[in-house]
Amino acid sequence: MKTIKDFQWKKGIKVEELVDSFGSVGFQSIELNKAVDVVIKMKKDGAKIFLTFTSNMVTSGLRGFFAQLIRLRLPDIIVTTVGGLEEDIMKAKGEKFIIGDFHPDDVELYEKGVNRVGNINITNESYCRFEDVISPMLARLYEKKKRWPVSELLREIGSMLNDENSILCQAAKNKVPIFCPAITDGAFGFHLFMFQQKHPDFIVDVVKDFSNILFSVSHDDKKGLISLGGSISKHHAILAGLLNGGMDYAVYMTTASYASGSMSGATTNEAKSWGKVKDDSDVVTVIGDVTITFPLMMVCVLDRLSEEGLLNER
Amino acid sequence: MKTIKDFQWKKGIKVEELVDSFGSVGFQSIELNKAVDVVIKMKKDGAKIFLTFTSNMVTSGLRGFFAQLIRLRLPDIIVTTVGGLEEDIMKAKGEKFIIGDFHPDDVELYEKGVNRVGNINITNESYCRFEDVISPMLARLYEKKKRWPVSELLREIGSMLNDENSILCQAAKNKVPIFCPAITDGAFGFHLFMFQQKHPDFIVDVVKDFSNILFSVSHDDKKGLISLGGSISKHHAILAGLLNGGMDYAVYMTTASYASGSMSGATTNEAKSWGKVKDDSDVVTVIGDVTITFPLMMVCVLDRLSEEGLLNER
Amino acid sequence: MKTIKDFQWKKGIKVEELVDSFGSVGFQSIELNKAVDVVIKMKKDGAKIFLTFTSNMVTSGLRGFFAQLIRLRLPDIIVTTVGGLEEDIMKAKGEKFIIGDFHPDDVELYEKGVNRVGNINITNESYCRFEDVISPMLARLYEKKKRWPVSELLREIGSMLNDENSILCQAAKNKVPIFCPAITDGAFGFHLFMFQQKHPDFIVDVVKDFSNILFSVSHDDKKGLISLGGSISKHHAILAGLLNGGMDYAVYMTTASYASGSMSGATTNEAKSWGKVKDDSDVVTVIGDVTITFPLMMVCVLDRLSEEGLLNER
Amino acid sequence: MKTIKDFQWKKGIKVEELVDSFGSVGFQSIELNKAVDVVIKMKKDGAKIFLTFTSNMVTSGLRGFFAQLIRLRLPDIIVTTVGGLEEDIMKAKGEKFIIGDFHPDDVELYEKGVNRVGNINITNESYCRFEDVISPMLARLYEKKKRWPVSELLREIGSMLNDENSILCQAAKNKVPIFCPAITDGAFGFHLFMFQQKHPDFIVDVVKDFSNILFSVSHDDKKGLISLGGSISKHHAILAGLLNGGMDYAVYMTTASYASGSMSGATTNEAKSWGKVKDDSDVVTVIGDVTITFPLMMVCVLDRLSEEGLLNER
Repeated sequence: MKTIKDFQWKKGIKVEELVDSFGSVGFQSIELNKAVDVVIKMKKDGAKIFLTFTSNMVTSGLRGFFAQLIRLRLPDIIVTTVGGLEEDIMKAKGEKFIIGDFHPDDVELYEKGVNRVGNINITNESYCRFEDVISPMLARLYEKKKRWPVSELLREIGSMLNDENSILCQAAKNKVPIFCPAITDGAFGFHLFMFQQKHPDFIVDVVKDFSNILFSVSHDDKKGLISLGGSISKHHAILAGLLNGGMDYAVYMTTASYASGSMSGATTNEAKSWGKVKDDSDVVTVIGDVTITFPLMMVCVLDRLSEEGLLNER
Repeated sequence: MKTIKDFQWKKGIKVEELVDSFGSVGFQSIELNKAVDVVIKMKKDGAKIFLTFTSNMVTSGLRGFFAQLIRLRLPDIIVTTVGGLEEDIMKAKGEKFIIGDFHPDDVELYEKGVNRVGNINITNESYCRFEDVISPMLARLYEKKKRWPVSELLREIGSMLNDENSILCQAAKNKVPIFCPAITDGAFGFHLFMFQQKHPDFIVDVVKDFSNILFSVSHDDKKGLISLGGSISKHHAILAGLLNGGMDYAVYMTTASYASGSMSGATTNEAKSWGKVKDDSDVVTVIGDVTITFPLMMVCVLDRLSEEGLLNER
Repeated sequence: MKTIKDFQWKKGIKVEELVDSFGSVGFQSIELNKAVDVVIKMKKDGAKIFLTFTSNMVTSGLRGFFAQLIRLRLPDIIVTTVGGLEEDIMKAKGEKFIIGDFHPDDVELYEKGVNRVGNINITNESYCRFEDVISPMLARLYEKKKRWPVSELLREIGSMLNDENSILCQAAKNKVPIFCPAITDGAFGFHLFMFQQKHPDFIVDVVKDFSNILFSVSHDDKKGLISLGGSISKHHAILAGLLNGGMDYAVYMTTASYASGSMSGATTNEAKSWGKVKDDSDVVTVIGDVTITFPLMMVCVLDRLSEEGLLNER
Repeated sequence: MKTIKDFQWKKGIKVEELVDSFGSVGFQSIELNKAVDVVIKMKKDGAKIFLTFTSNMVTSGLRGFFAQLIRLRLPDIIVTTVGGLEEDIMKAKGEKFIIGDFHPDDVELYEKGVNRVGNINITNESYCRFEDVISPMLARLYEKKKRWPVSELLREIGSMLNDENSILCQAAKNKVPIFCPAITDGAFGFHLFMFQQKHPDFIVDVVKDFSNILFSVSHDDKKGLISLGGSISKHHAILAGLLNGGMDYAVYMTTASYASGSMSGATTNEAKSWGKVKDDSDVVTVIGDVTITFPLMMVCVLDRLSEEGLLNER
């Protein structure tokens, strides 16, 4: 019987110690502490790990952290949305995103050519320069072949980038597939369309990519899921797991509520009814903004794995 | 200067009267009342109207309401996710979804072969029978042609259905396009993959469909958006509007918060910075579960449009 | 086995019909429909009904509705916070609250002497005039006696008001006690303090009022709770019920989440563990803004009770 | 112009370093980082600091942390609700609270005599033993005098406790007043009532305590507010500040949304309209569970203050 313990500050406390204390503080801090255990367990158990996130997290500084996690071989499969991949490329080419405010004068921002994502601002120029970057990439892809499953196309683009902190670049280098079930839902979609206008035999094969995610794991593999936020990224990973017998481990980190029946708010408990996570799985849902909860959890996970020599640090 | 007024019950009050009172009650009831005005305005202004919703709403009884709205020609363009379309087909073929509980024993449900979406349950059998339905449909599609943009494929499927309350059926009948940027993210994706295994030249062309949504409206059109929930449905409509100069009107109904910078929680205010909705647009965000807020708003809208003879009632 | 049904608009639909349909729509609409049944059941069972709400709801137009419900003898006991009672008095004396915006320039509002509660604005003048109203009331109270339990003081004030739409006035007229466990937490507290400065033997006896709420119901009574929002209003009613053996029925309407362990977010399920609501009770939690969900639910309840001649309409 | 920076893990990272990185990550992590600066600023500026929290936080392990902060003289004034104070006493007398689950079988818990607060369980025995503790304390109070303003009563009780980790004990020792505007809203209220039954001249003077909080700061003082969660604790501190010319600094940490106009969800922005925080104040709202966000923020604050020799460490 574990009991609540009075938390006490001591000077220079490490993240790993703080998260350890969280285990006896209460409410979401306890869930976050459990999440650390679940991730370590899935890693030690040799599970194939899906990591899913939404575009806004790539807009944030988590982008470089995702790249680092790929380099450390924490996740085996990435599922995300296209907006984040565009921004990963933009950042790889030197674009800077500006720290702003949640409640600015949005009309004024528009007039200045500034686009807002929460408290992060992106200039129109950043988007314009993206066009100059992506067009020659598509041309090079087309030279190689005409019909591209999404994840293969993304690997190819990743291999054209040269940025340590790029998700696409690290994924290509480390052979971690990136799945993006709605590849046209962003500026990237527009550029694909423009390219196809001129090259009608250019095809992005989403159906073929379904087999790629399906066969990225097998029934025999242990399977784990770390899902940040909701959206199709979360759903697509769950689906791939389900078709392979279900996940063995799952950590959901989200701000969404279960109460409206949405995928974003669906809890690890609901997932049990789908056989999406197996009934005897180790699963936990942490409610909170992932720009806080995810680094907290993962710093603790990485420290511990490193301590035990289980981290692929080169 | 509008002031708050004491709400009073009188017997047999109509929805339209209640929502009218809401205009002087406060908090989200005021926003809901404003939303009615924005939708009526977009309709009267002849705007092309995007209606977007997520899968769970089709799991719910809103499904038949969406179909009715299409029949009444309220929306001109639909954007949604594939899970809902699968369930629309399942319901068109007679499947029944069961009312359950938000906090059941999920392992017990799994053992009974019952899948849970919030407080709605779907049996495994319903999914199995979907396979029997979808396979011959794909075969018929393939006979017609090998390469299908998503919205054309969905229209063809819709024309094979015969259910007044089906979204796909009504959309096909009324020539309202349905866009679904992540067509493979569901059981449907699995069946497309199985079909392509046997027919490798079968292609679902998502890039071509980008041009379809892009040209579904023009810069010269007035454009309005009614977005329910978040996800790529919302984003894809905003994007299509943006590439045509931005929306003139927008109503967002969601439970998500702005605070984590997600697309689901992005407000109509944030959209102004993107020029996504024009700075002088009529826009409103209503926070709440759309199974309550959307029927409330739309019953009021439809009553008023009908009163003025502006509704396409046949 | 109840199943989901396709919702369909028909012209001039009544609130009662809409809420009836909600029972087979899904998610929170189903919970709202259940809440109607629970309230009707508690009324038919002759339960003593606690109605609790927070100050902001009295800022809104729900204020006159609460007064009407008291007149209709729906609730037997009211628990609320002092801010709302101040505003009930202000409105009884003719103050008007102004409809504003959720994201205005707050510094500009301050400079104009306007105070904001969400999208409702209150002028400084309204507060100043409150002083002129409350001071002679306290003087009259003091003449009668020196030591006042809170609910008796509030009844006395209510009897000095003459406004059909006033909560305090109707409660006094209909002998419905109003409990307010933090009577000093507002402008009213300031005026009590000023008065006590001059009359040190003036005492507001909160301890004595505990016995008043405790004996407002008995162990033998059936007891029901309709709790809007959270705060001490909710907690105080639950406590009074618990000390009398627990509630038999409970409807919670809130926007707060269970996830942080707060009283506001505590669900009817959690209440079972406290014996706060009995294990076999009829209980339901509805997530959503009460300015929408409460009128919807209650209009339906009142229509049905009136239909069956169970409403105290004079 | 500050820009977003890629976050990178390095082994053994300290909390202070992580929170420093948060300043360029995005969304709520940025707000949390700003909150650190605001708290340090208010401390350096010599502001009188109000710290407010709700009962559930005392149920959690934050209880000992609050006590430590009082010992370190971080806050000058505490405002809270009575449930937490009861539990502070229970813990000071050795009661243990048990770590549980957010979705257990609540009826089973009830039958076992276990009460649930989110994922924390409290046994009935703990409550029973509280009675044995509080009764002699009230007798001792009564011997001293008959009429007790709340904060004086709480200080007296604190001085009877002997637990380093007790909020009441440390507050008494360090002469930090604790205000509790709804002192009867809990088991404590029941025991006060029982005591008054036998000693009718025993009075808890809430009106007198209003003057105590009013004069706990002055117009000339700089004033700061750290508000955790919502409820009357938050409101009462804001009110006391307002009557003294308004707060100069404010940090709100909450999970509540602005959208329903509640006090819990009211942002630091709304507070500007009330002059509650001055227009030129340094203010920030952090959305998230305080069992995570508050220790994160305060560990960083304490490390930095300690570094600069500004912390009262004895």
